[in-house]
Amino acid sequence: MLTLEDAASSQPHQRVADNPVVAIVGATGAVGVELLHCLEARGFPLSRLRLLASPRSAGKTMRFKGQDLTVEALDESSFDGVHIALFSAGSGISKRFAAAAVKAGAVVVDNSSAFRMDAEVPLVVPEVNAAAMAAHRGIIANPNCVAAIATVALAPLQARFRIRRLHAATYQAASGAGAAAMEELRESTAAYLRGDSFEPKVLPHPYAFNFFSHNADMDPESGYNGEELKVVAETRRIMGLPELPIGITCIRVPILRAHGMALTVEFEEPVTPEQARAAYEGAAGVKLVDDRARNYFPMPSDASGQDDVLVGRIRADLGDPSGRSIALFVVGDQLLKGAALNAVQIAEALLKR
Amino acid sequence: MLTLEDAASSQPHQRVADNPVVAIVGATGAVGVELLHCLEARGFPLSRLRLLASPRSAGKTMRFKGQDLTVEALDESSFDGVHIALFSAGSGISKRFAAAAVKAGAVVVDNSSAFRMDAEVPLVVPEVNAAAMAAHRGIIANPNCVAAIATVALAPLQARFRIRRLHAATYQAASGAGAAAMEELRESTAAYLRGDSFEPKVLPHPYAFNFFSHNADMDPESGYNGEELKVVAETRRIMGLPELPIGITCIRVPILRAHGMALTVEFEEPVTPEQARAAYEGAAGVKLVDDRARNYFPMPSDASGQDDVLVGRIRADLGDPSGRSIALFVVGDQLLKGAALNAVQIAEALLKR
Repeated sequence: MLTLEDAASSQPHQRVADNPVVAIVGATGAVGVELLHCLEARGFPLSRLRLLASPRSAGKTMRFKGQDLTVEALDESSFDGVHIALFSAGSGISKRFAAAAVKAGAVVVDNSSAFRMDAEVPLVVPEVNAAAMAAHRGIIANPNCVAAIATVALAPLQARFRIRRLHAATYQAASGAGAAAMEELRESTAAYLRGDSFEPKVLPHPYAFNFFSHNADMDPESGYNGEELKVVAETRRIMGLPELPIGITCIRVPILRAHGMALTVEFEEPVTPEQARAAYEGAAGVKLVDDRARNYFPMPSDASGQDDVLVGRIRADLGDPSGRSIALFVVGDQLLKGAALNAVQIAEALLKR
Repeated sequence: MLTLEDAASSQPHQRVADNPVVAIVGATGAVGVELLHCLEARGFPLSRLRLLASPRSAGKTMRFKGQDLTVEALDESSFDGVHIALFSAGSGISKRFAAAAVKAGAVVVDNSSAFRMDAEVPLVVPEVNAAAMAAHRGIIANPNCVAAIATVALAPLQARFRIRRLHAATYQAASGAGAAAMEELRESTAAYLRGDSFEPKVLPHPYAFNFFSHNADMDPESGYNGEELKVVAETRRIMGLPELPIGITCIRVPILRAHGMALTVEFEEPVTPEQARAAYEGAAGVKLVDDRARNYFPMPSDASGQDDVLVGRIRADLGDPSGRSIALFVVGDQLLKGAALNAVQIAEALLKR
């Protein structure tokens, strides 16, 4: 197996070809399906799309631009002629195959956590830190879904004011745990409504009409789970605020595909809700949904299937009488801005470079 | 109609009778049903139970200790011979009928918001401020469900340390909006799973696999809704911390009957997670569910139907490097500690006085 260093040193860093050949690794997963949809919906100028997955999924077909494409089994020779490889098959697969893709001349956009904290791999949300892409050596990391959605919502504030502290409580959907978890939510809820028992197989707890602390592995020392620690580290890195104190609680709620988060943002100086709202004028990737008169704010039923991150409930934090803190409520599609859309946007930015 | 002042001045404040006659006002509602269950399950020493409700529900029967009790239509003469009246039919009914109950010699335990911020009416969570009951003039207010659950979780910390700031993000169940909202959650979810459309009738937004900012009326100036403002005011009052800064976001999640809350508590002095955990030893009304090794923490599937408030995820707040803040996650049954159980506990305390 090639090491990442071997691959990177042999990578010429040439400009990505016009009308590139694009491969999706993990094409049949929840994010893979959305990658394919995003490429088609956004008219991504590719010359060919290749679908790669485990041998178990090889031979299946998936619809793309009116044609049936056949899923191929992933191996180290899969990347011949590929210019952009969108990886979304877990960090084990990324660690095993990303170097082969880079060696073959592809730029890898990796949706797993494998390289996100690697100093030589840019971690990118295009609306926030597109410039970081320039330093890539063949791999660009796509962030954790909460970090991607949160930073899109925070960047317009950071551009105008200086954030000095963040607190977040999340309301996270099943999709973050994959298509099987979404199906388990549907099936277990149907069973509950029928009065039948249901044994969870994908998630560790009952999911029908239930919520629970995020199922990522717990760090027994700090009492934070892996999801929370990722959000902290990645949010700091994407925003270029390596010391930002971030308090966080990640909770899985019975929602299919959109993540919510209650954010409390403390700034160096007093900021009014009007100033905060004004910071979003013209901000990329954000839609304000903040209608106090109608009591209408961001919710998954509106955010699901939508590219924009919805931001609302912008108000002074009653917990900070100094006037330096703003509270907001944010909801974004976990499979789109939280995963597939952000990866395709990175690929689009590669073409522009 | 009697005013509350008239009624209170004519109220002799006598000791409540042994084996009192108890009335439930709003007996057929979600909380009313739980009041009846709590009185039976706890062996409340009553001589007679009377069930009062709207004329629409009069004549229905409800099972209590193996007997069918007939629901009577509520009117101003309903309280003759009643010693304790448990009101749970909305603040309009409480404002209209509480004075008549007091005039008739009953002590009213009121689950509505009608009198909660009245300086002459104690607002009581027995585990937190039972002593406040002594000053009652015929009416004792039962708090908002979030305030009741939160203060049970916070009181052991306040008893050992000094709380100087609180942030809360809630995960609130349908039951807070009544039995019809619980049914709407079930029905709309079943419709969603069948692929049918569903028009919300009780709540203002789709509820199937969806969450939304709490539907209480919004204060357009502050941007806080009525639920959030109640939690702030009542938490301060119950804890005797009238100036406590409390930042809060209340979100309705698709859960049937247990409320969750992510709390961040800032103290005057540094507090370690071990010290915070030790504060709960022997604390009334609280069960620690804080198993990092098994990644097992409070959730509605465990809290529903349970008297104790579940407290877990006790850890240092990563958002406060000074070491003065502790984060925790709390779940309690909205219909029990959030409503009926607390009211029955107040009634029990009346008997002991």
